[in-house]
Amino acid sequence: MKFTEEQVISEISSIFSPSTLKNPRVVVGIGDDAAVVATDQHSVITTDIAIEDVHFKREWSTAYQIGSKITVANLADVYAMGAEPRYLVVALTLTGDEDMQWIKDLAQGIADTAAASGSVVVGGDLSRGEKIIISVTAIGSSRLHITRSGARVGDSVYVSALPGWSRAGFEILSRNLPESPAFAHALSQFKSPQLDPVVMRSFKSAHSLCDVSDSLIVQAEQMSKASLVTLEIDTKKIEKCDGFADLAAVAETIGCDVWDLILGGGEDHVLLATGGNLPGICIGRVVTGRGVKVLDMKKAPDTWRHFN
Amino acid sequence: MKFTEEQVISEISSIFSPSTLKNPRVVVGIGDDAAVVATDQHSVITTDIAIEDVHFKREWSTAYQIGSKITVANLADVYAMGAEPRYLVVALTLTGDEDMQWIKDLAQGIADTAAASGSVVVGGDLSRGEKIIISVTAIGSSRLHITRSGARVGDSVYVSALPGWSRAGFEILSRNLPESPAFAHALSQFKSPQLDPVVMRSFKSAHSLCDVSDSLIVQAEQMSKASLVTLEIDTKKIEKCDGFADLAAVAETIGCDVWDLILGGGEDHVLLATGGNLPGICIGRVVTGRGVKVLDMKKAPDTWRHFN
Repeated sequence: MKFTEEQVISEISSIFSPSTLKNPRVVVGIGDDAAVVATDQHSVITTDIAIEDVHFKREWSTAYQIGSKITVANLADVYAMGAEPRYLVVALTLTGDEDMQWIKDLAQGIADTAAASGSVVVGGDLSRGEKIIISVTAIGSSRLHITRSGARVGDSVYVSALPGWSRAGFEILSRNLPESPAFAHALSQFKSPQLDPVVMRSFKSAHSLCDVSDSLIVQAEQMSKASLVTLEIDTKKIEKCDGFADLAAVAETIGCDVWDLILGGGEDHVLLATGGNLPGICIGRVVTGRGVKVLDMKKAPDTWRHFN
Repeated sequence: MKFTEEQVISEISSIFSPSTLKNPRVVVGIGDDAAVVATDQHSVITTDIAIEDVHFKREWSTAYQIGSKITVANLADVYAMGAEPRYLVVALTLTGDEDMQWIKDLAQGIADTAAASGSVVVGGDLSRGEKIIISVTAIGSSRLHITRSGARVGDSVYVSALPGWSRAGFEILSRNLPESPAFAHALSQFKSPQLDPVVMRSFKSAHSLCDVSDSLIVQAEQMSKASLVTLEIDTKKIEKCDGFADLAAVAETIGCDVWDLILGGGEDHVLLATGGNLPGICIGRVVTGRGVKVLDMKKAPDTWRHFN
């Protein structure tokens, strides 16, 4: 074995602890049975796991990117409730064959991504297994909360950015395509998606809000079901948005349908919102009925399901 | 595949949701991007993971026991801070070859164990992998909090119950020993440890508190280090406590040293406390110095470390 459990805990703690020590809301940080933190009247809680060779591959992504990406997935869920991320706990399973530098890079990716959203890692758990597993839970402060059930007839439908890039990146890596500058954005969105807290916070007047990590079409269906309305998505509006032409070009190069990427892709940490006068890209409207109606769409998009 | 992701989510939600719907502190339960819950001024947060063939085996334990055990591990960490468990989130990874009944039993074991402590499962994450993984995060309410750093010279040292039974159960299963009534308690402590909230709450006047899930000796060392004192553990006191003779008999039958089980065993969700007039078993005292002194001990106990 390259290191003892104590050595790993010591190295990881030295990455996570400085920001907890500076944070007056953290009463007890890493190193006791549990962390003790100041909480507001309402908190949001969400959890998300990343498993080696299921959600990431060590040959595809750096340790820093892997740590950052799972953190982004959790933070996006907090923002998707209209809340502010505050605290993270990380249950980390290592195989024992990692270099210490790899482990430190992973922790740094988590720590830096948390810091960019004003949150801190306050605790965790370390164990050993055959695959690397990173299970993150985020706790946020929720003065208001925006669910999936608030969409009203007459609302416009928005996304905070064009989804599909992450899936494009996944397809490029899966097909082992040669590197190309045209692929850079797709690859970075898959390997190391970024959250802009300013953008994520700019949807607080939305009537209904969620992220589209399970794909735009799946999460629009969920919003429709929770709100008892129809979400009408207008492909003509999406075609006009910034970046569509670039994504369509990438899709063509790699042999994918651009609408499969946009509507069925998944793993984009983009917000889906309904309301009036929201930022982002207006992609349709809320009408009476149930379900999702995609206007001017010739085929049903593929969607990714864990147990299909 | 035996089931779709939606079917699993639907079945699990129907087990977890009733208690969230009855709980006025749960504002948004399962089914949105994150749960929204009422929190007090201070919360405790802890996370713990159980991985198939590392922390449990399907041939050794029922699904209900596996779910209950990982929940107990989390709840014990909340109690070990002197706090009250309130909310749990569960990231569950399934292989796809489980029966639906197995999955429902797992969820029921989590739900019932949470309910027994007055806490509820408010959310989770479902994914698919080669091994079953259950990652639980517990959030508790902390009016006071008791760390590992409060032990004072002159305190007595207590455990809430005799540790070692869980490890005895593990040894019995690992050695594939034939069933025997003498092994029943050890096996139940390993497969399905129980927490008595009344006992767990009865240490709130402790100066220093932790659970001994990593073994009594390891956690006494941690308390000593955090409190800058020596914990003196008197084996003569332990020998006199209820259950010692039974555990010693089991140890002899299975060919283990009883002190390896008690001091180095681990996975017992027993509290270690210092203070005056506490309940449980008095096993020693706090004196000046650093480290752990085991009186009348002839050998160093084995301890379990993940990366040894």
